[in-house]
Amino acid sequence: MKQLVLIRHGESAWNLENRFTGWVDVDLTPNGIDQALAAGNALKQAGYEFDIAYTSVLRRAIRTLWQVQDAMDLMWLPTVHSWRLNERHYGALTGLNKAETATQYGAEQVHIWRRSFATRPPLLALEDERSSHLDVRYRKLDPKEIPQGECLQDTIARVLPLWHESIAPALKLGKRVLLVAHGNSIRALMKHLDHISAEAIMELNIPNGKPIVYELNDDLQALQHFYIE
Amino acid sequence: MKQLVLIRHGESAWNLENRFTGWVDVDLTPNGIDQALAAGNALKQAGYEFDIAYTSVLRRAIRTLWQVQDAMDLMWLPTVHSWRLNERHYGALTGLNKAETATQYGAEQVHIWRRSFATRPPLLALEDERSSHLDVRYRKLDPKEIPQGECLQDTIARVLPLWHESIAPALKLGKRVLLVAHGNSIRALMKHLDHISAEAIMELNIPNGKPIVYELNDDLQALQHFYIE
Repeated sequence: MKQLVLIRHGESAWNLENRFTGWVDVDLTPNGIDQALAAGNALKQAGYEFDIAYTSVLRRAIRTLWQVQDAMDLMWLPTVHSWRLNERHYGALTGLNKAETATQYGAEQVHIWRRSFATRPPLLALEDERSSHLDVRYRKLDPKEIPQGECLQDTIARVLPLWHESIAPALKLGKRVLLVAHGNSIRALMKHLDHISAEAIMELNIPNGKPIVYELNDDLQALQHFYIE
Repeated sequence: MKQLVLIRHGESAWNLENRFTGWVDVDLTPNGIDQALAAGNALKQAGYEFDIAYTSVLRRAIRTLWQVQDAMDLMWLPTVHSWRLNERHYGALTGLNKAETATQYGAEQVHIWRRSFATRPPLLALEDERSSHLDVRYRKLDPKEIPQGECLQDTIARVLPLWHESIAPALKLGKRVLLVAHGNSIRALMKHLDHISAEAIMELNIPNGKPIVYELNDDLQALQHFYIE
């Protein structure tokens, strides 16, 4: 049996303010740090061990991973940091809160963006200060790969190559994988693992800082998954 | 010009108690954390950037690296954790302080161990609880590679393969390397880079948490090195 544990980062400053965060590099709140530490302690108490970790290049995920590693005495764990595990890019909605978005675009339109699998938010202009094009951590990427706004379908399309090229092979080698990422990059993986429909995945909420354990067979078909509290 | 920055970890609990630490996984003191953060801030203020980090599998080095990464907004930096960068293994001296060592082995003998490049300390028995053979982080190694006690010459012999196989190639590719390790693994690298004699290297003290910047030519010959305060 293969073991994959997914954790959404702990509460961030903008989770608290209910703002569209996406690729903005917001940090954890003190409560978010406590959630991450609790996740590590719960995994340790339940006897979990890991051989490799995956995370995004955003600090709310990395700091969550660090807290888990620290709690589990696994600070030395080999870790892959990939932009492919970043949160969904919210385009021109980035930084807005729900009320601001409704005022600017109308409640009906916001409802469509929040519930539609394949409708992109308005894209960010390249010259917008919220654009990631000048960020040093993406400088090795083909500029066309850096999103200016994604629907969940787009996020899935850039998450899955990492699954196929790196995470799935590691699992097949018998490595026990810990993956700390974001609501929508985790949705992307869960949709793939559990064959969830486009409609159902939009309704699936991933709680902050709660480990989700997947047990997979040798072909990486999900046998079951459950939360560790 | 190629850029390599070496940092010895911040003050650890056993630095403070003047005990032989070696491979025991002692943590930083609050002062050690402050030193690490100051190192990161000094590097940031001086305008340094990095493409890859190297560290040991011991928490005092990893936590120092984390503080530096956090201060520099480089939490996403690809990082290699290698046992080859661990501190010199002090064998049966592990855990003893200077006074205990002198009582047990005699002041003259302790002086020889401290000053001799090629004289090993008494080796640790495999069944000794201080032995690293059962530690999960070394389970992939050939048991013969796990030291039971090293002189500095032994430490150098296991550090240099990482230099030749990974660090030097990264530098030749133009990567700016940050390396956070231990007094004796850093001595090993400095001896190699600066062609320091066996006698002189034993006298070289590496301060905790002070970045040492090496500027190297294309053949990785050291042009100069200096400390960042």
